[in-house]
Amino acid sequence: MPSRPPAVIGAPVGGIETPALVVDLDLFDANVKRMQAAATSAGVRLRPHGKAHKSPDIARAQIAAGASGICCQKISEAEAFVAAGITDVLITNQVVDPAKLTRLPALASQARIGICADDPLHISRLSEAFAGTGREIDLYVEINVVKGGGRCGVLVGPAMVSLARMAAEASGLRFAGLQAYHGRAQHLRTPAEREVAVGGAVSLVREARELLAAAGLPASRVTGAGTGTYLLEAHSGVYDELQSGSYALMDADYARNEPGSAGHFAHALKLHATVISTAVPGQAVLDVGLKGVAVDSGLPAAEGLTVRGVSDEHCVVVQPEGSPLACGDRVALIPGHIDPTCNLHDWFVAVRGGVVEALWPIAARGGGL
Amino acid sequence: MPSRPPAVIGAPVGGIETPALVVDLDLFDANVKRMQAAATSAGVRLRPHGKAHKSPDIARAQIAAGASGICCQKISEAEAFVAAGITDVLITNQVVDPAKLTRLPALASQARIGICADDPLHISRLSEAFAGTGREIDLYVEINVVKGGGRCGVLVGPAMVSLARMAAEASGLRFAGLQAYHGRAQHLRTPAEREVAVGGAVSLVREARELLAAAGLPASRVTGAGTGTYLLEAHSGVYDELQSGSYALMDADYARNEPGSAGHFAHALKLHATVISTAVPGQAVLDVGLKGVAVDSGLPAAEGLTVRGVSDEHCVVVQPEGSPLACGDRVALIPGHIDPTCNLHDWFVAVRGGVVEALWPIAARGGGL
Repeated sequence: MPSRPPAVIGAPVGGIETPALVVDLDLFDANVKRMQAAATSAGVRLRPHGKAHKSPDIARAQIAAGASGICCQKISEAEAFVAAGITDVLITNQVVDPAKLTRLPALASQARIGICADDPLHISRLSEAFAGTGREIDLYVEINVVKGGGRCGVLVGPAMVSLARMAAEASGLRFAGLQAYHGRAQHLRTPAEREVAVGGAVSLVREARELLAAAGLPASRVTGAGTGTYLLEAHSGVYDELQSGSYALMDADYARNEPGSAGHFAHALKLHATVISTAVPGQAVLDVGLKGVAVDSGLPAAEGLTVRGVSDEHCVVVQPEGSPLACGDRVALIPGHIDPTCNLHDWFVAVRGGVVEALWPIAARGGGL
Repeated sequence: MPSRPPAVIGAPVGGIETPALVVDLDLFDANVKRMQAAATSAGVRLRPHGKAHKSPDIARAQIAAGASGICCQKISEAEAFVAAGITDVLITNQVVDPAKLTRLPALASQARIGICADDPLHISRLSEAFAGTGREIDLYVEINVVKGGGRCGVLVGPAMVSLARMAAEASGLRFAGLQAYHGRAQHLRTPAEREVAVGGAVSLVREARELLAAAGLPASRVTGAGTGTYLLEAHSGVYDELQSGSYALMDADYARNEPGSAGHFAHALKLHATVISTAVPGQAVLDVGLKGVAVDSGLPAAEGLTVRGVSDEHCVVVQPEGSPLACGDRVALIPGHIDPTCNLHDWFVAVRGGVVEALWPIAARGGGL
């Protein structure tokens, strides 16, 4: 159960308690529409990543706009989305703990659920978890599409084909296709760098599809891509589905990408904060720190302000020349990285025309079991 | 209400679901005893900082060992500690929002509550919040003791004396003394650097005490210090109370300090994680990322392992030579920075002799209103 929300519906923006994550609904709606239009016009499905926002309300808005379902990273996230009525969820991650896996058949009785594997252990444990339940799960073999790096994902080759065969033959599993996400490409700064990186991923996916087809195990779906590269995968001819997530709300790190042909999405999310101290000359201190904003991808940004540093409970900004901030003033920050920042809060405050229109629980947040 | 705990009491350590924050109770008890002994032998009070752990159970253990109360940074944290029966809480921070301040008199009816100010606005709004309630709050004037920097805190001088006088005269407030914390000094790596920094703070505190005494407003308490410097303040002759917090659990960043005369505290806290993927040669991927461990003060550490990087949901470690990790293996990480890491979890799993002895809710966690 989340904590008390920082606002009431109908309140003016200035009446929101801080720190609070505030969503501008006009900008949000436009972002959601734009990504969906890009997917639709390229003839691919959009399955937005829920790990960015962890909000069933945002997932519902994305599905209402045309998305085919939602992605998430943990079984606990999938449970939160399914409990809120989302009926198609792909867990783009590996799970090995048998105690966690036993929660999946119940989920699969309420929604279409998919999950990834890059090791025989994942498949054998999943099959054990589904044995005798009469339920099935979509199994995506995750392939590593990052040259010389990456995190999870089997190398394209015989081991990948073996996993696909094992999935196709295991009871309780449907071999559904390939998970092929190039995480590192999302934050390469120039369009040319991103093209080279995704070009490499596309070659590997093509090779993987050919190997699987030759083995009589066609990949009916290949899913991947993110906000930094979605047009490349959409028009690759080998991806069927996009997993972009950050586009709906955006953050300062994605805005540091040179946009290329796709342009930037709007900063629909701001972190509202209040000045609590101006006692040290030349600076103002805000009522939010590391416990309200993640700094793994850089400091938060703020229009007309320079953020000097973030500590546990405080954010220090340089006093602007001419119009210094005073205690009680409000500041709107753009978080450096949206995913871990949203994870720190229990609520989005959704605002239109300066008035609070909705309160969205960040229901899938948390360290996550 | 926190999420489901990651273990049951009586379970073996290996039965804890991951990711989970696991406290070794023998090491924890020794840390708590040692800091209390240092304070007691120096003749100062210990008021441990609850922002590090956010756990009423840990606060109770610290008070049972001799601590005079607890510190925290937010009214929401104070509410969680008071609700759990802690009767002496100092909020070492400024609050300006009138809606937040109206929650303080109810707290002050159940516990002794203190709070800080470095601006006349803090004092006038506090006094308004307490008007007609029949309750009182301890008001500490926060002074800036960081030369050329710091966050909050009025400069030692006439403005400080004015704030103390305003506090002494305002209804609903008791002028209690000075908040004088040198945050930056805690993480200076050499004992010599820390001595110089705290030496500067001690000079400023001495000057502040003299100015206040001359104005007929003696500071009955001066409170400050942290795990990196506590012996310096304890033996300074001008601090009455220590606010160390990290010592009870410890983290990798504090362990990077050259210890000096005080030595290190033991790593009582570990973040347990499970290997979920070894598909990419040379590395293993764990089931915890930025949503379970903060990296603002560096990557987590792990005995015998090298952590290569942390992303939203994954931690990548280099495969150890000779005994490679396999899917399903457990790893115990030492978080880089304890405060924001504990904030990401709902539970501490307290273990003794390899068996789960207690489950402690991290009740004061959260973005915090």
